[in-house]
Amino acid sequence: MAKLTDISWEDFSTLYLESKKPYLERQDGSLMPYHTLFAQQFDRNILERLCSLANRIRFINKSKEGALYLKNVLAHKRAMLYFSQPSSRTFLSHLAACQLLGITTGSVRDAATSSEFKGESHEDSIRTFSSYFDMIIMRSPERGLAEKMAWELSNSERPIPILNAGSGKDQHPTQALLDIYTLIRSFENKGGLDGRTVVFCGDLLRGRTVRSLSYLLTDFNDIKQIFVAPKELQVPDDVIEILKKKNIRFEIGDDLREATKIADAVYMTRIQDEWDESKGESAKIDTSRFKFRAEELALLGKESIIMHPLPRRDEIDTCCDHDPRAMYWRQMRNGMWIRAALIASSFGFERTIMDCGY
Amino acid sequence: MAKLTDISWEDFSTLYLESKKPYLERQDGSLMPYHTLFAQQFDRNILERLCSLANRIRFINKSKEGALYLKNVLAHKRAMLYFSQPSSRTFLSHLAACQLLGITTGSVRDAATSSEFKGESHEDSIRTFSSYFDMIIMRSPERGLAEKMAWELSNSERPIPILNAGSGKDQHPTQALLDIYTLIRSFENKGGLDGRTVVFCGDLLRGRTVRSLSYLLTDFNDIKQIFVAPKELQVPDDVIEILKKKNIRFEIGDDLREATKIADAVYMTRIQDEWDESKGESAKIDTSRFKFRAEELALLGKESIIMHPLPRRDEIDTCCDHDPRAMYWRQMRNGMWIRAALIASSFGFERTIMDCGY
Amino acid sequence: MAKLTDISWEDFSTLYLESKKPYLERQDGSLMPYHTLFAQQFDRNILERLCSLANRIRFINKSKEGALYLKNVLAHKRAMLYFSQPSSRTFLSHLAACQLLGITTGSVRDAATSSEFKGESHEDSIRTFSSYFDMIIMRSPERGLAEKMAWELSNSERPIPILNAGSGKDQHPTQALLDIYTLIRSFENKGGLDGRTVVFCGDLLRGRTVRSLSYLLTDFNDIKQIFVAPKELQVPDDVIEILKKKNIRFEIGDDLREATKIADAVYMTRIQDEWDESKGESAKIDTSRFKFRAEELALLGKESIIMHPLPRRDEIDTCCDHDPRAMYWRQMRNGMWIRAALIASSFGFERTIMDCGY
Repeated sequence: MAKLTDISWEDFSTLYLESKKPYLERQDGSLMPYHTLFAQQFDRNILERLCSLANRIRFINKSKEGALYLKNVLAHKRAMLYFSQPSSRTFLSHLAACQLLGITTGSVRDAATSSEFKGESHEDSIRTFSSYFDMIIMRSPERGLAEKMAWELSNSERPIPILNAGSGKDQHPTQALLDIYTLIRSFENKGGLDGRTVVFCGDLLRGRTVRSLSYLLTDFNDIKQIFVAPKELQVPDDVIEILKKKNIRFEIGDDLREATKIADAVYMTRIQDEWDESKGESAKIDTSRFKFRAEELALLGKESIIMHPLPRRDEIDTCCDHDPRAMYWRQMRNGMWIRAALIASSFGFERTIMDCGY
Repeated sequence: MAKLTDISWEDFSTLYLESKKPYLERQDGSLMPYHTLFAQQFDRNILERLCSLANRIRFINKSKEGALYLKNVLAHKRAMLYFSQPSSRTFLSHLAACQLLGITTGSVRDAATSSEFKGESHEDSIRTFSSYFDMIIMRSPERGLAEKMAWELSNSERPIPILNAGSGKDQHPTQALLDIYTLIRSFENKGGLDGRTVVFCGDLLRGRTVRSLSYLLTDFNDIKQIFVAPKELQVPDDVIEILKKKNIRFEIGDDLREATKIADAVYMTRIQDEWDESKGESAKIDTSRFKFRAEELALLGKESIIMHPLPRRDEIDTCCDHDPRAMYWRQMRNGMWIRAALIASSFGFERTIMDCGY
Repeated sequence: MAKLTDISWEDFSTLYLESKKPYLERQDGSLMPYHTLFAQQFDRNILERLCSLANRIRFINKSKEGALYLKNVLAHKRAMLYFSQPSSRTFLSHLAACQLLGITTGSVRDAATSSEFKGESHEDSIRTFSSYFDMIIMRSPERGLAEKMAWELSNSERPIPILNAGSGKDQHPTQALLDIYTLIRSFENKGGLDGRTVVFCGDLLRGRTVRSLSYLLTDFNDIKQIFVAPKELQVPDDVIEILKKKNIRFEIGDDLREATKIADAVYMTRIQDEWDESKGESAKIDTSRFKFRAEELALLGKESIIMHPLPRRDEIDTCCDHDPRAMYWRQMRNGMWIRAALIASSFGFERTIMDCGY
């Protein structure tokens, strides 16, 4: 069994992502993630088990007795939410996931507070948190920091799990989880996810969600991926390379209406102009044809769904909000359930919850 | 029974306040508020029931066993405190009220964090919070937002109650509640609130607390209201109109000492210069005769009380702080109890607590 | 028995620290602190009892059952963390201590939020918090504020304990506690703390931790204190006066390597340039010989330890971090345990925990 204590940081950090996976697993044979660092560490088996556990937690939580049972499962644990890159949405979702399981939390969630730590290395700050808490949920603009800290803590006398809640442009593994969970759940009673057509639309160049979800979908059978975007914001080559290598069906285009007609799921994304290299470059791109409005809604299949990682601007018109196929609010709530499932699994409580009497 | 799902936003928003009331009630016949949006939705029956429940919660909380019982009542619920207009005092009071009942909480409480949500509509932000939490306690500079969100959420697939913790110059219903609770409690064993004389002093023009409290007092019998203020800051006409229409005894004057002699309660307020239209206009007003000091204290009846919504500047001299008639610290603590009563009622737990064995 | 209600603020505030001690004790004869304001209120008896309780809490917390027992001990209490001088490290440590005991918390932890309170006196702000919470843990740049508030609250109708979590350059009593706890614990099974040699190195002039720890060590038997620092940053005269008066062995020098050879504990500190009077004066001091590196590590005794209050800059090279004698991470975690012990004692729960069945 691969252990982070058996490998140097230099050796570990230069492995391919796929080769890192076993080092991040719990050491109890469950194969569940101990550290959660990148989307590529989830294979179909893990994804489906996490989705089942999320369903189970959601069901148990429906009754007051069940909710109180869940609040006792990890009531002996405390988690630190270290968000040196603020994001209230992601913060609150992880917070709620912790609260569902009875985990008490501490937090640093704004740049001002974290500026205090200037002069102290990130490693020292995070080791400080590890003194007080049993898990660190971290969001950072610094690429690779979560990975470094996972290695550091596993090699300290107080190893605790790290959950990456977003690292710069790089990775946001729990977003990928909630996207997959939403897809699996939406087609659960309609024949499953295999064989479906998923349309990605918007800023496919800079959205890390598209990259991760596209990757995870390759582990399902015969899913066709369609990428609809302005030329300047099309999906990058490395994503396409993976699809080709894995022999996945895909299309690249710019006609949202045509794609909508054959889509089982339309995954809309926001123009990520915060990553513009020169200010305002996004504003020059004509994005008018990459919005989902009443016209597109009329073309969408009856059992198809609309997704969005949120926040949105005007990519999806609010006239779609009350349509039963608009899945984006539920998608957000799914994030809470799947994160609760992930956190419970990291602490080794998958079976406890699956097998409880509720 | 009136339901927010049976009326369009346009129709609802143009109703008179009194006509909106039934739409905001719980649908279980308890008549208790489901959404709490404005002071005018409390009638004497509701006020007295909330005060009884607050007394009950206060009593139960005295023993460790009682406190632990209370912490279990809503332990399956989670509340979001969304304070895009910061107010630590109001925030902490609502937080404490939640904690008394075992509700776990998440929060956004400063302008910096909420600036993140720029580009996203308020409606989307609040709908996000509704994904993760079971109640939203919101404070916002935006007039009417709480009302809009109450309608929106009641018409979504995930309806949850909204509690307005202050909206601009507009409404702050729980402040009115705690004021009434303090009055009722102070005269509980002294013959009750009916027939009393209440003096309002200070900035009566811009303090929303005065407006709300004046209104709620009209639902009690034969209460005389005296408004003592500099001419420029006297109580506005619409407040007086209501008193006239309801045939309530009132006086308008500028002599605090004379008023103090006949007052059962003196309600002092701060000059709200943050609302000055041209900077410094308040500073030009002579407010020296509208402060409660040792001289006024000497004129106050033995069983009368001094109130203040706090924070104060120098409207009440600290020499009054240790006088048993100074009710302002207890008034603040009353806020916690009455908010706990309100929140418990919103979730339908009034009878559970009233009838419990503690 | 001395009571804060029997003495005026003027009389109390002008007492010597030693004479204030009895006024701060619980009134149940336990001698444990009710208010915790300064390091000098801990004598050896209290220190050893707090350390025993911290050990007990640490042990009980190892099992899930034990952790859940602890979370019930003070589940009926709520604490306010009022950090008008931000410090995430100290904040999180106190927060974690509260959480271990089941105390729910509210907080004000940044300058921006606390700026709201402008125009309101500190006394009013803190009295506000005392309305909602059962303990106030406060950190403030204002010297003496904690003391004033302790007197104020003890003389109000709602007395609750104050815990000073740092007041300017002045006092930080729980830091002293965790330092002593780390020393006691490190030599617990090696013959105890009496007779040891403790080396202080770095900025001994401006670090309040050195001052407090030096004082507390005088209550143990025959401990030698060695102060190693650049001339400009040497330990101030008043510290030395106390050692002389109490007939304590000490040395003043500038050779860290020689001191390391005979040290049982080396207590490293950071250059506190935030207290520079003219900007950059610290930068002119040659501190190169006051850093603990591989060379010093090689000279350190096998059973000796390295301490640091953290955060560090480069006073201790990271090459020491994985050495078993590096005690600074454990020292930080010790802070959580000893604070939990202190808080439990303030509420009168020392015996409950010591005698419980876990």
